[in-house]
Amino acid sequence: MIEKLVCVNCGAEYFPQSADAPNVWMTCPTCGPAEGILDFRYDLEAVRDSWLDKPLSKREHNHWRYAELLPLKETSLRTDWQVGWTPIVDAERLATELDLERVLLKDEGRNPSASFKDRASSVGVAHAMEVGANAIACASTGNAATSLACHAALAGIEANIFVPHTAPEPKLAQLLVFGARVFSVEGSYDQAYQLCSSACEQFGWYNRNCAINPVLVEGKKTAGLEIAEQVAAYGGVPDWVAVSIGDGCTIAGIWKGLSEMHALGMIDRLPRLLGVQAKEVAPIPYALEHGVLPEPGEGTTMADSIDVQVPRNWRKAVNALDSAHGRVVCVSDEQILAAIRLAGRHGVFAEPAAAAALAGVVEAVDAKIIEPHESVLVMITGSGLKDIRSSIRAGGEPLSIKPDLTSVEAAVENAM
Amino acid sequence: MIEKLVCVNCGAEYFPQSADAPNVWMTCPTCGPAEGILDFRYDLEAVRDSWLDKPLSKREHNHWRYAELLPLKETSLRTDWQVGWTPIVDAERLATELDLERVLLKDEGRNPSASFKDRASSVGVAHAMEVGANAIACASTGNAATSLACHAALAGIEANIFVPHTAPEPKLAQLLVFGARVFSVEGSYDQAYQLCSSACEQFGWYNRNCAINPVLVEGKKTAGLEIAEQVAAYGGVPDWVAVSIGDGCTIAGIWKGLSEMHALGMIDRLPRLLGVQAKEVAPIPYALEHGVLPEPGEGTTMADSIDVQVPRNWRKAVNALDSAHGRVVCVSDEQILAAIRLAGRHGVFAEPAAAAALAGVVEAVDAKIIEPHESVLVMITGSGLKDIRSSIRAGGEPLSIKPDLTSVEAAVENAM
Repeated sequence: MIEKLVCVNCGAEYFPQSADAPNVWMTCPTCGPAEGILDFRYDLEAVRDSWLDKPLSKREHNHWRYAELLPLKETSLRTDWQVGWTPIVDAERLATELDLERVLLKDEGRNPSASFKDRASSVGVAHAMEVGANAIACASTGNAATSLACHAALAGIEANIFVPHTAPEPKLAQLLVFGARVFSVEGSYDQAYQLCSSACEQFGWYNRNCAINPVLVEGKKTAGLEIAEQVAAYGGVPDWVAVSIGDGCTIAGIWKGLSEMHALGMIDRLPRLLGVQAKEVAPIPYALEHGVLPEPGEGTTMADSIDVQVPRNWRKAVNALDSAHGRVVCVSDEQILAAIRLAGRHGVFAEPAAAAALAGVVEAVDAKIIEPHESVLVMITGSGLKDIRSSIRAGGEPLSIKPDLTSVEAAVENAM
Repeated sequence: MIEKLVCVNCGAEYFPQSADAPNVWMTCPTCGPAEGILDFRYDLEAVRDSWLDKPLSKREHNHWRYAELLPLKETSLRTDWQVGWTPIVDAERLATELDLERVLLKDEGRNPSASFKDRASSVGVAHAMEVGANAIACASTGNAATSLACHAALAGIEANIFVPHTAPEPKLAQLLVFGARVFSVEGSYDQAYQLCSSACEQFGWYNRNCAINPVLVEGKKTAGLEIAEQVAAYGGVPDWVAVSIGDGCTIAGIWKGLSEMHALGMIDRLPRLLGVQAKEVAPIPYALEHGVLPEPGEGTTMADSIDVQVPRNWRKAVNALDSAHGRVVCVSDEQILAAIRLAGRHGVFAEPAAAAALAGVVEAVDAKIIEPHESVLVMITGSGLKDIRSSIRAGGEPLSIKPDLTSVEAAVENAM
């Protein structure tokens, strides 16, 4: 139930039904692809009526339940792809440890390719099919690419993935198993990115790139829609939602979903956002204060999904943080490793960028940004199985023993 | 709604309410732990009444929905652990390729620790808590151990895992991140196994070992219960259910669930079972024919979860295959690698033992065991993320190109 598309740069409005611009959905023709990112707006009155007519409570438990808030025709929905409605783990012992009212871990690792990005890619691939594309492309070695390859395989359309030739073998393996065509580019990530954009233009491939394609963020948004519904069973809207920030699009998408649910009257208040960045890769705190990005730093982090010195969607992230009375904290790789263990000890296996959000909560509690007895929902954006090398660093060593009971006993006592 | 426990060896019956044997639930006191495996039997009349009263269709979508068929008190159910009700992928293109009516891939990688074994471990940990154990143990480096560590972490009880010192680092990492106490035993797997059993007796730890603990198979059974419910949306009971066989307990558990649903009238017929083993590790075809295990072979397979020369539950597996008019086929590692790619190209990322089941379907179609236009459900028992090394072997090579469009075009043409 799209009302219009708005250019986030110039404010121009585009109407899907309009004869003037029937095909505008990618970027603003006036501002161009670099600046003219569009944003979908919906007729919320109509959505409300539709939800009264067909209540959410009677719908399937996946993210297609929010059909009216997705930029897809009803016939384009792929309800056979089980994306979203990921479980929440109520980590009661952890809440006690941190002196918080409640700590909820939303486990996005339970999506089809084991990350949050499946939300975006599933909607992107469904949209690609709606507009008649027979191939889809992106430049990435991370969860965006894996989720794209997975959903392209489900759809039976071609996925073209551009990666720098330095991409690690395990990440390539997943893409190749899903049957994607993987171009290993003799150049940098930026060259791979540019080549992907050119190839999309040249060959008519659908461009799955959140920085320019506004359809993708609508998929990410579904996490915010879900949170609004699911927290009813856990004491209502939490005081905080914690999300790690890389490109900026994830936190912005989640905020959009929460805001729409608030506007629709599904929740009576909004949480604050806790943005989390890596200490060595932290452009957002500067951007939040100064309204522009800083000069790119040289640092790096083990949390590859947020290892982004020049976030393409920084403005969206800053806007979300502003309206959410948000705060940003930064965490070291050591804190991230500790948070991998912490999440694990409460039953959730998190990849570094996901554990970073939990590390940020610990940091914010220490810094008294999050106050005692507040409640927090933490987005665990991907499974620890995605990055076994980091898990090995986090895990520590087993107890080496001889095969007899005395050794068992001694090892247990020593370990205490 | 347990009626009794039956010893699968001597047929002795034990009644939970009985004053004679109030604590018998592990193994038959007469036959001993090596032979006297017990089997739970339920009062199916009472189950039927309860399901009429509280229909399954109104219950939560996880495996606790089958409360009446689990060996747990109602207060012991951990409905906050989201286990089971894993999605089915209807691989239509694959069915066409294989000239089958339907190929359904049941994606068990969507469980909490990304494998089928979460079903058993969740029920086991809940039972351990019911009987007042404060620690639980097993000997394994595979999915059984990981799922145990995960659920012990969710429960907040201690997990003790015994592994041979040769266990690969990535598998240890998951266990350690989940906070398990991992004993790396200077000895063989058999020594680790024996030491675990002794330690359970000595320290009063709960023994999560499917070969002697009958509670675990009740968890595995839930996959069969689910299949019976879920296939209604996919043309009804398929002609075949394909499962790879290692220890024998998984196929037996699934068959038990299907049989109970048939006895309850929830399905009007039963599928046949297609058991799949690795060519080099195939004791079951011999056992099926001769009623005893062969001398253990020397071979091995990349599919570690089914790399079992002496299956402890071979008799259960053989019984299941017998009553299911089942067949067993054997597949090579090359066929397993091909099946990893095949499942991937249809959107499901499978570990080798899971892909083996699909490889077996291809083999059985070639051998005309599965006939044209029949339908098959394939148990994808674990995620490919569990074994990235095999995924790398399966994946193949990316297309190396220079960063220009001409190279993209040339690579696409060459690859065709």
